[in-house]
Amino acid sequence: MKLATFHDGAATRLGLVEGEEIVDLATGDDRFPDDWIPLLAAGPEGLEAARRAAGSARRLPLSSVRLGPPITRPRKFLGLGLCFRSHIEEIRAKGGPIPDHQLWFNKQVTSLNGPYEPIHMPGVSRELDYEGEVAIVIGKRARHVRSRDAAAIIAGYMVCNDVSVRDWQRRSPTGTLGKSFDTHGPTGPWLTTADEVPDPADLRIRTWVDGELRQDGNTSDLIYSFGDMIEELTTVFTLEPGDILTTGTPSGVGQGFSPPRYLTEGQVVRVEVEGLGQLENEVVPEPR
Amino acid sequence: MKLATFHDGAATRLGLVEGEEIVDLATGDDRFPDDWIPLLAAGPEGLEAARRAAGSARRLPLSSVRLGPPITRPRKFLGLGLCFRSHIEEIRAKGGPIPDHQLWFNKQVTSLNGPYEPIHMPGVSRELDYEGEVAIVIGKRARHVRSRDAAAIIAGYMVCNDVSVRDWQRRSPTGTLGKSFDTHGPTGPWLTTADEVPDPADLRIRTWVDGELRQDGNTSDLIYSFGDMIEELTTVFTLEPGDILTTGTPSGVGQGFSPPRYLTEGQVVRVEVEGLGQLENEVVPEPR
Repeated sequence: MKLATFHDGAATRLGLVEGEEIVDLATGDDRFPDDWIPLLAAGPEGLEAARRAAGSARRLPLSSVRLGPPITRPRKFLGLGLCFRSHIEEIRAKGGPIPDHQLWFNKQVTSLNGPYEPIHMPGVSRELDYEGEVAIVIGKRARHVRSRDAAAIIAGYMVCNDVSVRDWQRRSPTGTLGKSFDTHGPTGPWLTTADEVPDPADLRIRTWVDGELRQDGNTSDLIYSFGDMIEELTTVFTLEPGDILTTGTPSGVGQGFSPPRYLTEGQVVRVEVEGLGQLENEVVPEPR
Repeated sequence: MKLATFHDGAATRLGLVEGEEIVDLATGDDRFPDDWIPLLAAGPEGLEAARRAAGSARRLPLSSVRLGPPITRPRKFLGLGLCFRSHIEEIRAKGGPIPDHQLWFNKQVTSLNGPYEPIHMPGVSRELDYEGEVAIVIGKRARHVRSRDAAAIIAGYMVCNDVSVRDWQRRSPTGTLGKSFDTHGPTGPWLTTADEVPDPADLRIRTWVDGELRQDGNTSDLIYSFGDMIEELTTVFTLEPGDILTTGTPSGVGQGFSPPRYLTEGQVVRVEVEGLGQLENEVVPEPR
């Protein structure tokens, strides 16, 4: 299944994407909430209820609606740094430090953005950069999950652009602020449930800026498996339905070039992950 | 006003603390939700409604209820590192790096804990440490707030123990995992609204371990004002009602001693902030 949200005036509605159409679940069953999290938390019955409601629901051309982030109110939005072999080489070449352990940081949940919404150029920086990634969405509350059992708590996958402001990332070792500007977490275009992703360890990730291919990697190049990531995190804390883990970027980010090729206003960044769809976001000035 | 939550069987209820009593708001008006965030977001009318409801509500002895964290479902839980002159000296003496900018990190929202609940000794570490702090709770959605205007978005203050697992904090430069173990964010005992805190820049913070005074600082020793913190964060992202900012710790943490004096199972940590009340949490083994 492809779980989406879309805007209908001020309201957010849940939709299922089927081919070139989106099924408006609110017309099939008005009990549907405005976020997928309660349905994910309900386990297989939650998605089964959505599937049933879809039978009698209104269908719209996908191109006629404005999609929102598939998960609108996650409790956590975590990102992993420096975990693709190719990206590590790129950073090492610049003299940057390479961590011994998984390097997790938070993107603030307020940075979440839809798949086709604008990305704001910060008023305080010109070092705006892209990172094409695969994001995991958690489906089940869990702690102390072994790597080999981790698939059972993954609801599905989506594309994420882990937009980063490099000078603000370097302002402190935690990198928190540089990863957290409003609009800097485009995700989507929908959440593809795990049963529709045959091999998450073999997904091609590509990023284009104004049509120029900048990143072309594959999750097979990750030094940690998705299971390893979930084991590490749940050694420490509880993951909950709707939590988003964006799993790192391959080489080809703007700061990897000499001189760096940061994003400028008016440019369009497109991130595509094999089988998961694509994001396309234009860089615009931050509103004041 | 002193805004609290307490447990009544499985349910969380809102309460106002008045002297040695707690007013059970659910008995005064059954529209009250189980979290203060919607009431904070409603502005002065939200708290006024709570005050009105209190008139006809059941009163219980404060000592008879189990208090929960005042804010149960914040969207953000951020912490500031290395911002007390005394704590900076302590870290510098150990050869640690001192940041040029505000050093923000996230505690995962799942680490949130009540004022008298146990703190878990991790299964994977013995380097469990305390950090007595003042936490700000945001009352208003805001971006681009100047330091001098920041008081207008602060709902109030509470005590926080920014419990830290030092070896996991050092595992990566972001420190994320070491700050985020489940139960490692005791807050409370209630949220004291800003109008009852005459000078937030002059609050004594003390921490005891098994009755031995370990930290004795004052927010007057902070190198950034609360306004500076809010200006820095809102340069980057939107703060929302219920967001928690814990504002750093004075000297005297366990890792500052030679050799370090980490917490052990059975010890009780008490953090008291002048005018805001106290937390008291026992260290217990992590359940498996």
